[in-house]
Amino acid sequence: MYAPPNFDELIERRGTHSAKWDMMEPIYGVPADGGIAMWVADMDFRPPACIQAALEGMTAHGIYGYFGDDRAYVEAIRWWMLNRHGWEVAPASIFTTHGLVNGTALCVDAFTAPGDGVVLMTPVYHAFARVVRSAGRRVVECPLAREDGRYVLDIAGWDALMTGRERMLILCSPHNPGGRVWTPAELREIAAFCQRHDLILVSDEIHHDLVMPGQKHSVMPIAAPEIADRLVMMTAATKTFNIAGAHIGNVIIADEGLRLRFRKRMDALGISPNSFGMAMVTATYSPDGAAWVDALATYLDGNRKLFDASLNAIPGVRSMPLESTYLAWVDFSGTGMEPGEFTARVEKEARIAVNHGPSFGAGGESFLRFNLATQRSVVAEAVQRLERAFADLQ
Amino acid sequence: MYAPPNFDELIERRGTHSAKWDMMEPIYGVPADGGIAMWVADMDFRPPACIQAALEGMTAHGIYGYFGDDRAYVEAIRWWMLNRHGWEVAPASIFTTHGLVNGTALCVDAFTAPGDGVVLMTPVYHAFARVVRSAGRRVVECPLAREDGRYVLDIAGWDALMTGRERMLILCSPHNPGGRVWTPAELREIAAFCQRHDLILVSDEIHHDLVMPGQKHSVMPIAAPEIADRLVMMTAATKTFNIAGAHIGNVIIADEGLRLRFRKRMDALGISPNSFGMAMVTATYSPDGAAWVDALATYLDGNRKLFDASLNAIPGVRSMPLESTYLAWVDFSGTGMEPGEFTARVEKEARIAVNHGPSFGAGGESFLRFNLATQRSVVAEAVQRLERAFADLQ
Repeated sequence: MYAPPNFDELIERRGTHSAKWDMMEPIYGVPADGGIAMWVADMDFRPPACIQAALEGMTAHGIYGYFGDDRAYVEAIRWWMLNRHGWEVAPASIFTTHGLVNGTALCVDAFTAPGDGVVLMTPVYHAFARVVRSAGRRVVECPLAREDGRYVLDIAGWDALMTGRERMLILCSPHNPGGRVWTPAELREIAAFCQRHDLILVSDEIHHDLVMPGQKHSVMPIAAPEIADRLVMMTAATKTFNIAGAHIGNVIIADEGLRLRFRKRMDALGISPNSFGMAMVTATYSPDGAAWVDALATYLDGNRKLFDASLNAIPGVRSMPLESTYLAWVDFSGTGMEPGEFTARVEKEARIAVNHGPSFGAGGESFLRFNLATQRSVVAEAVQRLERAFADLQ
Repeated sequence: MYAPPNFDELIERRGTHSAKWDMMEPIYGVPADGGIAMWVADMDFRPPACIQAALEGMTAHGIYGYFGDDRAYVEAIRWWMLNRHGWEVAPASIFTTHGLVNGTALCVDAFTAPGDGVVLMTPVYHAFARVVRSAGRRVVECPLAREDGRYVLDIAGWDALMTGRERMLILCSPHNPGGRVWTPAELREIAAFCQRHDLILVSDEIHHDLVMPGQKHSVMPIAAPEIADRLVMMTAATKTFNIAGAHIGNVIIADEGLRLRFRKRMDALGISPNSFGMAMVTATYSPDGAAWVDALATYLDGNRKLFDASLNAIPGVRSMPLESTYLAWVDFSGTGMEPGEFTARVEKEARIAVNHGPSFGAGGESFLRFNLATQRSVVAEAVQRLERAFADLQ
C-alpha cells in the first residue's frame, strides 16, 4: 500500500491559489514568471498518499455537512504522540483550533489581559508578535545569544529583563528561524525561567516532526513535567504534512484550571474545526504518515546540505546550521552590506522571494529566511542565482 | 454542463462522520439503526456539481498549502449578492470567518463588553444565546408574538423591556425557527428599534437563499440603509449549498468604524479561512449554484407541504407555515401533553431525532424542530411514524 514519495517531481503551483507562488509578485515584487518562491512556510510537495485517499473518500461520498464523531481523530493524535514522541496524551486535554496562529491567539486571549507582557525569544516566528500586539498586549523581546553560529539561551540576561508584569512566554520548539532543536536541559531551563517569573508557557511545537536525521526533539510536557500546571503545548499536522490550507491545529493542556479557561474562550468565540482538516489529520497520524515524514526529513537534509555548502562559500554570508525545519536562516552581516542592498540582490537579481529578517524581531536585522522545502533542482537553481548575485564578493 | 439535481436519491450518511446521523444515538438516544435524523441543520443532499468539480480540481492538483489570491472568491460573493439579492457589496466590507457561529461570536467580542445586554428575538437559533452567555454577556429575551399562527414582532413590548444597558441585537433573518421571511416594513421596524435603543444590529441572514417559491427575502442593508452605521450583515454559502463542514462564512460591514474594530479582533484572534471553503464558495456563488438552489427550494416546498398536511391533521399539533428554511417548528401545546411526553413519543416511539424547543429560548417550551431537508421518501416515513405515535389523539 505504501509507495515511497518522489520529492523530485516538479509540480506547477502558479495559478492554484498558492499564497507562496501566487502572492510573491504582489508582496515582494518577484515576478511570477521566472521567480522562485522561498518565503512562506509550506512545501512544494504533495502530502502522503493516505491524505489524498482520505480526501478522495470524502469527495466520493459527496456530502459535506457538519462533522460528528471525533473518536478516530483523537485516537490518531494519541497514536502519533505516543509512537513518534513517546508522549501519552489524554483525550480530554486536546482542543482543536483553526491552526496554531489561532491557537496562539486564543492562548493570549484566555491567559493574559490587555497591557500584560508576553515574552518572545527573538528572533522568532513573526506571527507571535503580530498576534500579541493586535490583542493589545506588550511584546517583551528576550534576544537569543549565539554560540558557534547557533542560537542559545541567555537566561541570566532574560532574568534581568523581567519586571513582574510579564504573564506568558511563547516558545518556538524547535526554533523558527534558526532551526534549533532545544535540548532537554535547555527546555528545563526555560521551564524554570517560567516558574521563576510566574509565566504561562505556550510551547509551539509545530515543527516537532521535521527534525534532521540524527536529531531528537523533546516535547515540553516530557522534558519538564514539573510545569504541567502552567504549560500549554501546541502542535499540528499541517506543517509536517504540508496541509496548511486545512487550517487545523491542536492545543493540548494537561492542567484542568487552564483547560477550563481555554474552553470558555473557545466556546465564547465559536471555534470548531472543519471536516476536511479532521479527515486529513486522522489519516496521516498513522504508520503511512510516519514513513512519509521519515523520507521527507532525509530529502530536506539533502536540500539543506546543498544550500549551506554554496551559501557558506560566499564571503561574509552564513547559513545557520539547521537541526530542524526547512527554513534556512541566513546572516548577511559579514558582507558589510545594508539590508536594503542584500535584500535587493536576492529579490531583484536572483529573483527569489524570501522572508525579511526584521519581521522576526530583534536580532533579525541582517538576516533573510529561505524556505528549502522544494524540489532539489529548484534549490540548485536558487543557489546558482545567489552565487551570481553575490559573485563580486568572491 | 448543468444537470438537474436528483434530490430523491437516498444517500447513506451513517458512518461518514455526519453529526446529524452519527451523533443522534449518543445525543438523543434515537438508534442509528432505524432512527431518522431530523435535528441539526444540514441536508441529506449532495451539493451542486460545481462544488464537487472544485473539490476534484483541488485533489487533482494535490497540494494543500496556504491559500492566496482571493480575488475570484470576492468576485463570486459580489456576483451572488448582486444577482440573487440585488445588493452591491463592496469588497473591502467582507470579512471571512470560520462560519457564522464564529462570526456571531466575533461580533459579540468586538462590539460589546462583559455584562452588556444582547437582545434576542426568541425563540431563536440556539447558538446565539450560547455564544452570548459563554462570553459573559447577558441574554435579553424579547419574545416574538404570534398572529395567525406565525411569528410577528412586538416592538411596543420590547421597547418596555429595554433598560439602556443593551448594546446589540442579533436578528435571525429569515427566522429560525418558524421560517418567517421578515417583510421590508418589519425590517425597518427592527432597524428603528435598534436606533432608538442605540443597539448594534447583527443581521444573521444565513438562510436568505432558502426561501419558499413565491417568497422574497430582503437583505437588511437594502431594507434599512439608514442604519448602515450600526449594521453588521452576515451570510454564508454553507447553509444554502449544504457545505457546513467547510466552516466558512462572511461578515459584511459597510461602516468603517465598525470595520476597524472587527478587523482588530480578527487579527488578534488569528482568524483566516481554510482553502477548501474558499474554493467551494467561489465555485457555487455562480449561475450553476443559482439553478441548483432554485430546484432545491421547489423540492423543499414539496417536503414542507407533505409534512404540514399530515402533522396539522393530528389534533392539537400545529406546524408553523414555513416561508423560508427547511426547519419545521411544531407546536404540541394543543395536545395538552407535557414536553416530556410528546418528546418521548417522537424520539422513542417514532424514533426521530429532533431539536428540543427550550434550547431556542423563551417561547420554545411546547415546540420541537424538525429538519425536512431530506429525501421525500424519508419525510413520508417520518410522517407515518408520527401519525402512529399520536394515533390515540385522533
